[in-house]
Amino acid sequence: MKLTVKDMDIATGGVRVVLLNEKDAEKLDLHHNDRVEVRKGKRKTTAVLDIAESSKAVKLGAIGLFEEVLDDLNVKHNDKVEISTGKKPVSVAYIKKKLDGVELNYPETLKIVEDIVNDNLTNIELTSYIAANYVHGMSLKEIIDSTKAMTITGSQIKLKDKLIADVHGIGGVPGNRTTPIVVSILAAAGLKVPKTSSRAITSPSGTADTMDLFCNVGVSIPKLKKILNKAGGFLAWGGAEEINLAPADDKIIQIEHPLEIDAEGQMIASIMAKKASVSATHLLLEISIGKNAKVPTKKEAERLKWYFSKVGKSIGMKITYFIDDGSQPVGNGIGPALEARDVVWLLTNHEKAPKDLCRKSLEMAAQMLEFTGKAGKKQGIKTATEILESGKAYQKFVEIITAQDGKELKPEQIPLGKHTYTVKAPKTGKIKHVDNKITTKIGRMAGAPRDHGSGVYLHVHKRAKVKKGDPLFTIYSQNKEELGYAKEGAKKFKLMEIK
Amino acid sequence: MKLTVKDMDIATGGVRVVLLNEKDAEKLDLHHNDRVEVRKGKRKTTAVLDIAESSKAVKLGAIGLFEEVLDDLNVKHNDKVEISTGKKPVSVAYIKKKLDGVELNYPETLKIVEDIVNDNLTNIELTSYIAANYVHGMSLKEIIDSTKAMTITGSQIKLKDKLIADVHGIGGVPGNRTTPIVVSILAAAGLKVPKTSSRAITSPSGTADTMDLFCNVGVSIPKLKKILNKAGGFLAWGGAEEINLAPADDKIIQIEHPLEIDAEGQMIASIMAKKASVSATHLLLEISIGKNAKVPTKKEAERLKWYFSKVGKSIGMKITYFIDDGSQPVGNGIGPALEARDVVWLLTNHEKAPKDLCRKSLEMAAQMLEFTGKAGKKQGIKTATEILESGKAYQKFVEIITAQDGKELKPEQIPLGKHTYTVKAPKTGKIKHVDNKITTKIGRMAGAPRDHGSGVYLHVHKRAKVKKGDPLFTIYSQNKEELGYAKEGAKKFKLMEIK
Repeated sequence: MKLTVKDMDIATGGVRVVLLNEKDAEKLDLHHNDRVEVRKGKRKTTAVLDIAESSKAVKLGAIGLFEEVLDDLNVKHNDKVEISTGKKPVSVAYIKKKLDGVELNYPETLKIVEDIVNDNLTNIELTSYIAANYVHGMSLKEIIDSTKAMTITGSQIKLKDKLIADVHGIGGVPGNRTTPIVVSILAAAGLKVPKTSSRAITSPSGTADTMDLFCNVGVSIPKLKKILNKAGGFLAWGGAEEINLAPADDKIIQIEHPLEIDAEGQMIASIMAKKASVSATHLLLEISIGKNAKVPTKKEAERLKWYFSKVGKSIGMKITYFIDDGSQPVGNGIGPALEARDVVWLLTNHEKAPKDLCRKSLEMAAQMLEFTGKAGKKQGIKTATEILESGKAYQKFVEIITAQDGKELKPEQIPLGKHTYTVKAPKTGKIKHVDNKITTKIGRMAGAPRDHGSGVYLHVHKRAKVKKGDPLFTIYSQNKEELGYAKEGAKKFKLMEIK
Repeated sequence: MKLTVKDMDIATGGVRVVLLNEKDAEKLDLHHNDRVEVRKGKRKTTAVLDIAESSKAVKLGAIGLFEEVLDDLNVKHNDKVEISTGKKPVSVAYIKKKLDGVELNYPETLKIVEDIVNDNLTNIELTSYIAANYVHGMSLKEIIDSTKAMTITGSQIKLKDKLIADVHGIGGVPGNRTTPIVVSILAAAGLKVPKTSSRAITSPSGTADTMDLFCNVGVSIPKLKKILNKAGGFLAWGGAEEINLAPADDKIIQIEHPLEIDAEGQMIASIMAKKASVSATHLLLEISIGKNAKVPTKKEAERLKWYFSKVGKSIGMKITYFIDDGSQPVGNGIGPALEARDVVWLLTNHEKAPKDLCRKSLEMAAQMLEFTGKAGKKQGIKTATEILESGKAYQKFVEIITAQDGKELKPEQIPLGKHTYTVKAPKTGKIKHVDNKITTKIGRMAGAPRDHGSGVYLHVHKRAKVKKGDPLFTIYSQNKEELGYAKEGAKKFKLMEIK
């Protein structure tokens, strides 16, 4: 059937879509969400059918094409195209299999992941896959297969070194910006640390958001390789267009996020795929345990460790675990710029450096130095502390950000939101609890991570003694209205409890 | 935030959607698929956010509105609207619960079904619900709750009679057009039979498609009530806009269809909701068992019977089961018009009436007459046969279709596809197998049910003896090209096997 193209002037940013008039669809015996093949000369593409209910949108004999299809066929408004029934991707049958509780094999998983990356699946199909994995769970073999499939369907930074170090934290704890510090110490100690991080989705900042303050986090892969060989490390955003590690993860998160689910198997595969993508051989995995953290109990942490180790073994990656208390935020600044300032204070041995963040970063670096043999048994902490206190870590940090088109920033040069509000202690006592979820909520209400200068600064932590009137925390916002929202939030929800 | 309306000129036909420029979405901390509240004066509505990747589609400061949102707010191109963060429907939390394997209670199921009917859920959310029901299964209580919820969220034909008869067949068997015959016999016997049927989704014809040949199947509910009181029955399409029984079903099928799943609990709830919607008190449920039918084994039929009876009991509906062989098509005509012709031949006691369809229709009617007390024990078949052979059933059928704005049609007045092709027996022997799936496939290739005159006419059935050169089946098509496709199909796939 020949149809006249209507340029719909929209990019779906996902699966290819075409629109047909209801009557034409009926004539072709096509239903909503069926696949159709669209052809122009020798070019052809497969798209998903959407049926226009009013002929206002698409007239009889016309076909509405979205940007992706226009590009595939190289056609424009009023061109003629041919259409016929298209085939569903074979991966839909594998998704059906998983829905039915059957374990998938590697070629099946790979095909599904390829189709996710290439936008060949509708939201219905992709959601079914994610829901099936969530409900049935993924077997260890499926997690390993998925790790491999997610790795090879994205960019890879292939390195031949025998020892490539990487660190990863399983989040849910606000602040906790150990990565720039640990990477700087490890690189200064002579390790190669090709660190890619993510942006915040539901938190007030991700490492990539904090690094935005210092440098360009979307550096090309050839340039990253050069930086790694010269400086020993980099601090990049894995999801940047220039880098694009394990892109299936982003598409999966787009489905998981609105449902507020985080399927365990999928999470393990995503993390491990990103580490495999940078050729990591040694990984330090930090797991924070706490009521409002991602991992609520020790038992859950143990199960995760078992899975990570098995996956690591199968792809030739050694893992050491750093288990820490995740019951309260780590560091004082929460939000991209406030965390960036903590990082600089810490790396420059300033008295305002948060002690908890310092302790944690040193211990993580120490463990990794021992794990990789860069420090002898029980010597890690000494080596790490020496590197930090001597200024070598800071020097390394400056070297890395300079290589990533950035420059050194003094703590006072880091731009913070100019609208502030400080909450003071209503009574004298001891801080009993600092809430992760509420800190996150108020930080986001103030505008973080979108407005890098917005966030929350904690003047005290759990177990600190305070007098009535002492400052507890300060909200920073770039926007007066949002400061108001965050202030109201701080009145409504208890960020800190005093006993 | 104030934004300028861009009329996108598209109706989604489902959930309300708005499009924002990527930068505006970031400014508002909004993600793809988040809910937003859109306001104009006192009018407001909640929609799902789609993010335009190119500013060509939606410029900074603009908002693309689809038809449903334009209508809700009564705004037009270039008007100004306000937007803010919207709330997710509470039913999304219930869907999450079901994903986690928790049994839902009635208020939760009702809220989900309401949100399905009102297009408040995205495909991601709706698919998660369906996948969760499919994987975890639905408990009996959930099926009953869902039946009730689907009933009250649609139109209802409320009747106060003590005895309202209804029939339903669990399909998968081509032809099998017993409904118009059984309804005519039952109504002629004095029963009230408010019969609503569906259209074909994957088969060559549904009862509503066949009834199209005779009358208007989309009659208003007040008029249907009048017809029922006068003629004792009607034969309508439950999904017609004027009728709209259990509309949640259609939306669920739109998700299930592309995945090729048919969740058992959902199917039971859908069927029972449609029967409850017409106030049925006595239901004859026909289950055809056969390899390529919906119910493949006797064991499965037994399980279904258990569920249906329990649901029936809880909503005050008595059910009798008619279990039949579903291993081959029933009747000779397959396709709307060919089946319509069989129906007229049968009701007028013509020699060309298919014997299997006649036997089955009489047995079904007989069972229902006994079940409702309209015939004594073992007297059903006598009564039904007398009604059919005397012409009373046909008279009733004509009365019903006339009331539904139709008129009597002689078999030769029923328009069949003028392009035909007859497949002949390649050898002498006995018919060993007539395949349901292939009959369906070839009927649809020929253009059924879209082209009412297209389909397949079976000259013989299983166990018939044929001589070489005898006609086996004839393909009818309204379209020469499609006859060609169906012919090729008939060469490629074996519709009948001779031994």
